[in-house]
Amino acid sequence: MKLNIALLAGDGIGPEVIDQAVKVSDAIAKKFNHEINWRPALTGAAAIDAVGEPYPDETHEICASSDAVLFGAIGHPRFDNDPSAKVRPEQGLLKMRKKLGLFANVRPTFTFPSLLDKSPLKRERIEGTDLVFLRELTGGIYFGEKGRRDEGETAFDNCVYTRDEVKRLAVKGFELAMTRGKKLCCVDKANVLETSRLWRETVQAMEKDYPEVEVSYEFVDAVAMRLVQWPNSYDVLITENLFGDILTDEASVISGSMGLMPSASLGSEIGLFEPIHGSYPQATGLNIANPMATVLSAAMMFENFGLQEEGKAIRDAVNSALDKGMVTEDLADGGKAYGTSEVGDWLADNI
Amino acid sequence: MKLNIALLAGDGIGPEVIDQAVKVSDAIAKKFNHEINWRPALTGAAAIDAVGEPYPDETHEICASSDAVLFGAIGHPRFDNDPSAKVRPEQGLLKMRKKLGLFANVRPTFTFPSLLDKSPLKRERIEGTDLVFLRELTGGIYFGEKGRRDEGETAFDNCVYTRDEVKRLAVKGFELAMTRGKKLCCVDKANVLETSRLWRETVQAMEKDYPEVEVSYEFVDAVAMRLVQWPNSYDVLITENLFGDILTDEASVISGSMGLMPSASLGSEIGLFEPIHGSYPQATGLNIANPMATVLSAAMMFENFGLQEEGKAIRDAVNSALDKGMVTEDLADGGKAYGTSEVGDWLADNI
Ligand SMILES: CC(C)[C@H](C(=O)O)[C@@H](O)C(=O)O
Ligand SMILES: CC(C)[C@H](C(=O)O)[C@@H](O)C(=O)O
Repeated sequence: MKLNIALLAGDGIGPEVIDQAVKVSDAIAKKFNHEINWRPALTGAAAIDAVGEPYPDETHEICASSDAVLFGAIGHPRFDNDPSAKVRPEQGLLKMRKKLGLFANVRPTFTFPSLLDKSPLKRERIEGTDLVFLRELTGGIYFGEKGRRDEGETAFDNCVYTRDEVKRLAVKGFELAMTRGKKLCCVDKANVLETSRLWRETVQAMEKDYPEVEVSYEFVDAVAMRLVQWPNSYDVLITENLFGDILTDEASVISGSMGLMPSASLGSEIGLFEPIHGSYPQATGLNIANPMATVLSAAMMFENFGLQEEGKAIRDAVNSALDKGMVTEDLADGGKAYGTSEVGDWLADNI
Repeated sequence: MKLNIALLAGDGIGPEVIDQAVKVSDAIAKKFNHEINWRPALTGAAAIDAVGEPYPDETHEICASSDAVLFGAIGHPRFDNDPSAKVRPEQGLLKMRKKLGLFANVRPTFTFPSLLDKSPLKRERIEGTDLVFLRELTGGIYFGEKGRRDEGETAFDNCVYTRDEVKRLAVKGFELAMTRGKKLCCVDKANVLETSRLWRETVQAMEKDYPEVEVSYEFVDAVAMRLVQWPNSYDVLITENLFGDILTDEASVISGSMGLMPSASLGSEIGLFEPIHGSYPQATGLNIANPMATVLSAAMMFENFGLQEEGKAIRDAVNSALDKGMVTEDLADGGKAYGTSEVGDWLADNI
């Protein structure tokens, strides 16, 4: 296969972890006879510094004309404590999601047997956890009208959803559930929000088209609890943008393997693949960040092209690195810690 | 003291747990020479069944002319799966909060040494956890304009905050922090939402008035993670209504003592005191629900009247019940489980 992949390293540790995913993907290409044309482009704070905005048109053109986007991380603390900043790295991410039509964010949470004891949760609570969130990514309060009135004294953000937006996300949820445990949980706040009631009624009307899928409806606050209590009771969860932001991050830490969790954002033909961790600014340039989540995001990318074997080869390499203790300091646990690039090299060599 | 207390038992297990809080409060009144005039009133599904709405005017009049409200639980599953229901028990709760001006929901999460092992988290993660959320309760997306357009195909909910609403909540947060660990965390999503930027800039401007308080700003998704990882790193957290709904429920399960967590809603002169658990419909009438959270809510009520000793007497009784295994089945752990009313009797007898 000939693949054009846009490469958006972004901020903080982004460039370092992306480098390792490139090494590993190149090793896959060599082994399985593919050709990857990497197309680097600017985004985030890095793009603001270079050209004054976080998702420049050139970057969009590169992404839109590629087969997929591999993404590092975005965000820089210098913007966070300045509520009046006019340009923010995160705007780039949001613009990109919207312009590329990436409406479905796929975020798995699973456990690695060798890492179970890293979890803040007790072993018996997380053993067997294997869930996937489908978070709606281009609607809701993130993209509704927002602003100030009364000379800045009043602020507002509007949350809007159409039935079609809910439906296309829910279709992906039902389909995914059919390939897995056949359980779907619709997460909403239908006891308070009108948008949630639209979500619930839309999903309820779809149940009859997927008679094998067992559908449940839970309030977002109840899910925030149950994720900590019984994460292994879930299979596929679908939810709106903001709830998804909060709950997927919560879910990511329960496995104890936050540094290993990949994600995909799908919708149009072009998928975007990225680790779920942030830009971890304190670690920038130190060669200590764990590259495995980004490497596993590359595995999701291959799988999304239908290249299952290639994906599996990456997952196997990561598993054997974990077994052999070829890990960065976050997972070293008193043992030897390897650098970001050493872990990347080892993975590439073992493909 | 002569106290008029509105008594809103509500739905599900509400009446059973409220009965125990009444017994215990009456024992306190007897011991400390107070006079409590209980004023029962209807709310929730119970009120819908009786008079067609969840917070009838009569109930409001009783609450508004009392010194405090003691509340059980609200909600019934028969309304949850009907997105088109016109009247919902929860509307009663929201109307009550608004009409009584209860803008600050105080939700502590603390641990009981004897219950540490009930937590889904490992002991070393939760030991020493003692945090309080101040959740804004009468603004935000709960109370903004909501509805449908395009013949029902589009739904919307508006989130609105004014600087004054943020300020009055933040004042309570700073003041509470001064009486405790002097740390305040403002939880928002300022990288995306305009209302969050108003929150952040308002709190930033107040920092100089409380030079002793160490203030931090964290995104809601980051807090959802850190609550599971290091709950004992927090002291006081302030946040808006919806974030507070999700995060306080998440926080409630980390201690392992969800059935023991009380809450207070303050603002006007009249405070409302209630357990944070729900109406637990499956347990209704079975005499198995844990009444301790409601009993501890009564303790918060006495303390809010300035009656610290009375509050402490209740807390001491609960602690000794826990030590002696005088507990309901949720805490029995293979040992003998007592009924809701037996636990209530024991607590009242041991005041
Ligand atoms: C950086 C931020 C805008 C973003 C979001 O809220 O969507 C991030 O938290 C995420 O989950 O990808
Ligand atoms: C019942 C519901 C409307 C309510 C809320 O969302 O505020 C509840 O979850 C709570 O936290 O008190």
